Amino acid sequence: MSRYLPILRWGRRYTPALFADDAHAALIVTIMLIPQSLAYALIAGLPPEIGLYASIAPLIAYAVFGTSNTLAVGPVAVVSLMTASAVGRIAETGGPEYIAAAAALAVITGLMLFVLGVMRLGILANFLSHPIIAGFITASGILIAASQMKHILGVSAHGDTLIEITRSLAAHIPQSNIPTIAIGAGTMMFLFLTRAFLEKSLRAVGIPDRLAASIAKAGPLLAVIGSTIAVAALGLETKGVAIVGDIPRGLPPFAIPDLGADRWRELAGAAFLIAIIGYVESVSVAQTLAAKRRERIDLDQELIGLGASNIAAGVTGGFPVTGGFARSVVNFDAGARTPAAGAYTALGIALAALFLTPFLYYLPQATLAATIIVAVLSLINISTVLQTWRYSKSDFAAMMITIFGVFLFGVEIGVVAGVALSIILLLYRASKPHWAVVGQVPGTEHFRNIDRHAVITSPVVAALRIDGNLFFANARYLEDTVLGFVANASTLKHVVLMCSAVNEIDTSALESLEAINERLKEAGVSFHLSEVKGPVMDRLKRSHFLDQLTGRVFLSQFEAMHSLDPATFRLVNGAPSSGLAKTEQEES
Amino acid sequence: MSRYLPILRWGRRYTPALFADDAHAALIVTIMLIPQSLAYALIAGLPPEIGLYASIAPLIAYAVFGTSNTLAVGPVAVVSLMTASAVGRIAETGGPEYIAAAAALAVITGLMLFVLGVMRLGILANFLSHPIIAGFITASGILIAASQMKHILGVSAHGDTLIEITRSLAAHIPQSNIPTIAIGAGTMMFLFLTRAFLEKSLRAVGIPDRLAASIAKAGPLLAVIGSTIAVAALGLETKGVAIVGDIPRGLPPFAIPDLGADRWRELAGAAFLIAIIGYVESVSVAQTLAAKRRERIDLDQELIGLGASNIAAGVTGGFPVTGGFARSVVNFDAGARTPAAGAYTALGIALAALFLTPFLYYLPQATLAATIIVAVLSLINISTVLQTWRYSKSDFAAMMITIFGVFLFGVEIGVVAGVALSIILLLYRASKPHWAVVGQVPGTEHFRNIDRHAVITSPVVAALRIDGNLFFANARYLEDTVLGFVANASTLKHVVLMCSAVNEIDTSALESLEAINERLKEAGVSFHLSEVKGPVMDRLKRSHFLDQLTGRVFLSQFEAMHSLDPATFRLVNGAPSSGLAKTEQEES
Repeated sequence: MSRYLPILRWGRRYTPALFADDAHAALIVTIMLIPQSLAYALIAGLPPEIGLYASIAPLIAYAVFGTSNTLAVGPVAVVSLMTASAVGRIAETGGPEYIAAAAALAVITGLMLFVLGVMRLGILANFLSHPIIAGFITASGILIAASQMKHILGVSAHGDTLIEITRSLAAHIPQSNIPTIAIGAGTMMFLFLTRAFLEKSLRAVGIPDRLAASIAKAGPLLAVIGSTIAVAALGLETKGVAIVGDIPRGLPPFAIPDLGADRWRELAGAAFLIAIIGYVESVSVAQTLAAKRRERIDLDQELIGLGASNIAAGVTGGFPVTGGFARSVVNFDAGARTPAAGAYTALGIALAALFLTPFLYYLPQATLAATIIVAVLSLINISTVLQTWRYSKSDFAAMMITIFGVFLFGVEIGVVAGVALSIILLLYRASKPHWAVVGQVPGTEHFRNIDRHAVITSPVVAALRIDGNLFFANARYLEDTVLGFVANASTLKHVVLMCSAVNEIDTSALESLEAINERLKEAGVSFHLSEVKGPVMDRLKRSHFLDQLTGRVFLSQFEAMHSLDPATFRLVNGAPSSGLAKTEQEES
Repeated sequence: MSRYLPILRWGRRYTPALFADDAHAALIVTIMLIPQSLAYALIAGLPPEIGLYASIAPLIAYAVFGTSNTLAVGPVAVVSLMTASAVGRIAETGGPEYIAAAAALAVITGLMLFVLGVMRLGILANFLSHPIIAGFITASGILIAASQMKHILGVSAHGDTLIEITRSLAAHIPQSNIPTIAIGAGTMMFLFLTRAFLEKSLRAVGIPDRLAASIAKAGPLLAVIGSTIAVAALGLETKGVAIVGDIPRGLPPFAIPDLGADRWRELAGAAFLIAIIGYVESVSVAQTLAAKRRERIDLDQELIGLGASNIAAGVTGGFPVTGGFARSVVNFDAGARTPAAGAYTALGIALAALFLTPFLYYLPQATLAATIIVAVLSLINISTVLQTWRYSKSDFAAMMITIFGVFLFGVEIGVVAGVALSIILLLYRASKPHWAVVGQVPGTEHFRNIDRHAVITSPVVAALRIDGNLFFANARYLEDTVLGFVANASTLKHVVLMCSAVNEIDTSALESLEAINERLKEAGVSFHLSEVKGPVMDRLKRSHFLDQLTGRVFLSQFEAMHSLDPATFRLVNGAPSSGLAKTEQEES
């Protein structure tokens, strides 16, 4: 029971001291989350209150089902962008249909995560390599920053791809609104400065460290308050500054969104990508923070925790959520010690939704856009791109496909293209495994690559060592290699395939071995195996291959060569085959 | 030049003796191909003359560009089924739009093959594992046989999936036409009997072997002649027997099909699958036959050869083609010695198109359907299904997904689902590589699995050996494994990762190694590597990992353990580390 409800484990040992720490962390995260939740709703193309709604129930659900003590769940930039992309295809941005579809997307995403968790399929996240995630996040950051520029300029540009957005912005620049630009640029500068200097300055004037850190995190909230007052005082909303306006007061509504077959068809693909990407982002943060305190998270239970969060978001009028990086680090630094901190944060946001929204009437959209741009610029990671280029050209190619896929065709095609290319490149590399002809190291019973060592070989028996598993991607290459080798060696009577590096032979490779055996037989050459590992041998025994094999299966390579050409491969010191060769063979 | 035009190689050495052999083979293949080409047009939902058109120009193109001496190119059952599936989605079966789309499909398929050939990407065919191909062909055979039953019964059933077809057939059985059933069932029985007994019987009555074999291959042609005469003589066309009717006389028209952006969008996916599946089917046959005569085919040039064939099919009013199995075996057995045999076959079919079509007026469709059913039943291979079940459950799963995908959702979804599942299962297996904690075998400098051998270990230094490449699919598992191991061993000061089985470390795994190093550092444990292969080391030097590494990189495992805990791991016989350990390390 407590396996699926981690709260039963830590809840029993909850103490007032833990409460004090969790509550302090929750206060700071709440201050940070209020402007973030409004801003991420803006990225998703949703009204601001939806951002608040998505920051209440999901946090409580995660506190019940999640395993990380410090992960802060809620709307995040990349998932909000993916939501906008998915829902924008099927409804008019911001309308009731759009809001309903975003909630349905959250429920579908949540159900997928939940089912993956119950089936213990967290392994699917392995399809996303680090370079693809890094490329995806960098490209999404740039795309988000570009899409928010219209709010900074006070124009109504639009577009889904970077080219469309840039073109539309360029066309609308002449209509820019000067007061809006002043607010937007001013906020950005303020945020950069608080980030760089505020905490240090506060400490310098004698404010205690912990309080200084807390105040510094309030930069976006201060910007919200300052710019709201400025607009209200100067009546800038009449001078063309777009404001947030009326936000409905109250707690999120409970409603199960329409989940008909059409909704599934329209949203399932996007929901799956959001589920996987959200999960990967979230567990990366959670694992990093857990390791710092020697804690561990449960990767499968995390799927259930995030699934519950998204379902909670969807049935309370929200949109897809996941664990956010910056917010979780703040939660960690502020001293959160159990998932309860998230529940207290939810309480803070609920109070904001009940009492704070009237004060947000004059909040300029440019301020929210500025907080978004400053936040996402930290997602853009050029040094990782350069390091990947230096380290691995094929990983770099997958990263570039992802980045330009996102820029030119949108987030979904970008990430799918990246995954497809990385799998293709993986199979491409696996399709040509390293292989070597081996000979006996004089005076030993060891066999080594004839190109690298002075070894003993024979004109009648050749030994090939394949360095890798034999499976569908290289089955054809295996046939080609062995038959090509034999075609060029007319005196051969025996070929030994040394399988010391083979941990698996799948059905395709088995059929290739059968074909090799058959064709060598027609050419009058016997085919032998050596050093076949136990589990591989067990499976071969379940096929007809060993009955058809023209040669034998030898325990050790030395035994094979000595049996087939005793005149060339002699015993060392006249002693029988040493125990060591057998030990190697049995190793698996 | 002769690299891309293989005809320049064999054409220069062409002799009258070669001509005699090729011409004999061409005669037999022509006799076999006339009914086949009509029948496969029926599978594709095209008028019979299109089948003849697809058996002329493509054969000549292959003779110029192909590298197999015995491959017989033309319409084949599986590709015809895929054509019907792709073109049936965008046009009314058999209409002018449908015929034009089939020709466009052939050109697009051909261009894709051609480009893959020029880019030397034949490797893409590796994505199709043997079990998927076997499952696909078996399922297609059953689907084709089911779809042809309506012609045997003389009813007008329809449907794309096995369930639809079966249901429609069942509903129409009461309207069955008795004379049609008599012709269909009679033809099937005749074909089964000629297959089983004719060649043997002819030899028994003293007819020379080669002539007996040739006559036996004429079974379908004899059925065509016999049933055509029966219909004409008995006037069965007035009793409800569907006949082929007027077939336009003459050579194929030359016309470049409409290839606008819409056509590409509609057909590109299907064309890609036809290209890959056709290629795999074709090279499997070509390789098998080439090996029997110690010849070799060029896998990349085959892409160009099949590409040229399909383009030739498309611009002469045909539909997609590839190398056929049964036909190529007949060509081989009949003694074809160069690709010219294919060109002579084309000449035979051209003569048929010019002079034979009026005689086919009374040919009953039931006869063609019967030849199809008898031919495709040999594609159904239940023993392979059973063998795969015994040998590998995961390959069996991929095969079953393919088979039921084809049955329930059609050929394209079937094969894509099979490929997707086999890649998922591959990554799943790769995501949990075998690993072992190793210790020193007493009296040697070798290190072995502590679970399998009595070895020396230390409380302060542990060595982990990972048996596989480190890449995105197992990067997370690597982190989890190493950190989990260390979390349970409180006295540890050093961890050595033994990399003797690691041929590659990609960017994802590199970042995991960095994370492991970082987290072990926080726990006060040094991280070391040993036995890193040369190419892997060269790449690690291009990253920052070695600068950050808290420990060292040791040439041999023994050196590592001896340096880190000399009290436990002693030199053997007081001698320095043996040369053998170094030799192993340098091996790649």
